[in-house]
Amino acid sequence: MRDYSDPAMEARLRKASKAQGFNQWFGLDCIAAGGGEVELEVDLREDHKQHHGYVHGGVVSSMADTAAAWAAATLRGDDVVTSNFSFHFLAPAVGDKLRAHARVLRGGRSQITVEAQVFALDGGGAEKLVGAGLAAIAVLPQKLTDD
Amino acid sequence: MRDYSDPAMEARLRKASKAQGFNQWFGLDCIAAGGGEVELEVDLREDHKQHHGYVHGGVVSSMADTAAAWAAATLRGDDVVTSNFSFHFLAPAVGDKLRAHARVLRGGRSQITVEAQVFALDGGGAEKLVGAGLAAIAVLPQKLTDD
Amino acid sequence: MRDYSDPAMEARLRKASKAQGFNQWFGLDCIAAGGGEVELEVDLREDHKQHHGYVHGGVVSSMADTAAAWAAATLRGDDVVTSNFSFHFLAPAVGDKLRAHARVLRGGRSQITVEAQVFALDGGGAEKLVGAGLAAIAVLPQKLTDD
Amino acid sequence: MRDYSDPAMEARLRKASKAQGFNQWFGLDCIAAGGGEVELEVDLREDHKQHHGYVHGGVVSSMADTAAAWAAATLRGDDVVTSNFSFHFLAPAVGDKLRAHARVLRGGRSQITVEAQVFALDGGGAEKLVGAGLAAIAVLPQKLTDD
Repeated sequence: MRDYSDPAMEARLRKASKAQGFNQWFGLDCIAAGGGEVELEVDLREDHKQHHGYVHGGVVSSMADTAAAWAAATLRGDDVVTSNFSFHFLAPAVGDKLRAHARVLRGGRSQITVEAQVFALDGGGAEKLVGAGLAAIAVLPQKLTDD
Repeated sequence: MRDYSDPAMEARLRKASKAQGFNQWFGLDCIAAGGGEVELEVDLREDHKQHHGYVHGGVVSSMADTAAAWAAATLRGDDVVTSNFSFHFLAPAVGDKLRAHARVLRGGRSQITVEAQVFALDGGGAEKLVGAGLAAIAVLPQKLTDD
Repeated sequence: MRDYSDPAMEARLRKASKAQGFNQWFGLDCIAAGGGEVELEVDLREDHKQHHGYVHGGVVSSMADTAAAWAAATLRGDDVVTSNFSFHFLAPAVGDKLRAHARVLRGGRSQITVEAQVFALDGGGAEKLVGAGLAAIAVLPQKLTDD
Repeated sequence: MRDYSDPAMEARLRKASKAQGFNQWFGLDCIAAGGGEVELEVDLREDHKQHHGYVHGGVVSSMADTAAAWAAATLRGDDVVTSNFSFHFLAPAVGDKLRAHARVLRGGRSQITVEAQVFALDGGGAEKLVGAGLAAIAVLPQKLTDD
């Protein structure tokens, strides 16, 4: 567990994620969450991949986008949605797992700016930076009811 | 079929897409392709959605990204990959289908710039703009073997 | 004058622009403004250029960013600022003038999404697309006092 | 001077910058450059500002874009240009100076991805993060003649 992580926050995000059809398919696991920072992992499967056998770009960028939104959610009890994001693919993603790390750069009243990086991990534990992005996350006016 | 569309190009992109695990899950159908322009559609399912019942942002942005790459592919016999993209979410995506339309703004030797828009369609045929993006697509040096 | 343009809005934006040190240096002229749409022009000078003799990228992208913010301002009496933007350079900008055209894609309560394109114009009237961008413009809570 | 900086590289970038009309107006100074990393500073003047007295967004984002291009230039003897960039404004920029720091995330054969941050500095030495961006820098095929 990372220093910044808060087990109650991790549990809350895992529970919210299980209520989503897309995230159930995706297989995201929250491995750390708290204080504007999040790490997510996914075990890679065939349906995450494209024609070269690499992880599909949509999987890599969606993971960054999701990590960014969850990093914003750790700062605010409110519901959040991605307003916009930019993502740069840096290397083909191959391996057993993907890990995304997102960190809030600035948390405003109605908008939170987050940077995210995605790493590919092989079985031996080596990790490689495969993409980087910046996201603007909007804080929705209404409160999220958590239960 | 759109004026710009070339049935042989549509067939080629559909065949390439079927070789991809991610795209099989996604369910993308190519409805027009040719001359730097592409339209894709997907029938929406539960595993495309998030906790509000809207289509997940990762699905919307991946569709724009894929349409952008395919629009670039119609211009060049070469293999292409997304280098980077920016995407703005404009409205919650609800309905029966998503449609993405991508159009090349400029096709260079090693990089192609593409704009893409995503629309949500309901059963009655109304369509609503739900997102817009810009992508830089890299042309890979090696040729795609097509068979 | 463009169909969409409103002379009173043009005059208001010109006046606001003259109160800005940067815009005075830049030399922007508002040639059309209204209904979420704006066109700006600038006569090119040596201090707009870089080492190849092309217009500096900062000038091209700033013009797009400014046009985007002004397009948002035509829709709302409120003060607006750019929250974030993405810009793709499509061709070297050479000529006598630059023209930027911006158009609102969606106007929300606290954020407005705008697309912008920049064209280089030569003396003979030919115009070339040199860049394209997408911007998220934030609506500031306080009202702009207009006089 | 920063650990990563190379005085010959700094001198080369300063000389190249002086050949540019825009950069002469801008007043950029290179304070460190080498190994894919760059820091630039500018003393703020009235013509860098907008109507609230803050530094104009075009100045802030152009500084990030320039720093990104120069960071890429430190890695390659080749001439480089910005292909595209995304920039998020995080806080109003006020103070005596702006400083930009850019760092290469990945240097490819024809494209280099760079992250950049811009800080506002007041007279007392306090610095505040005012913007962050990601840029794709293209390596031009022809070599830069350096003298």
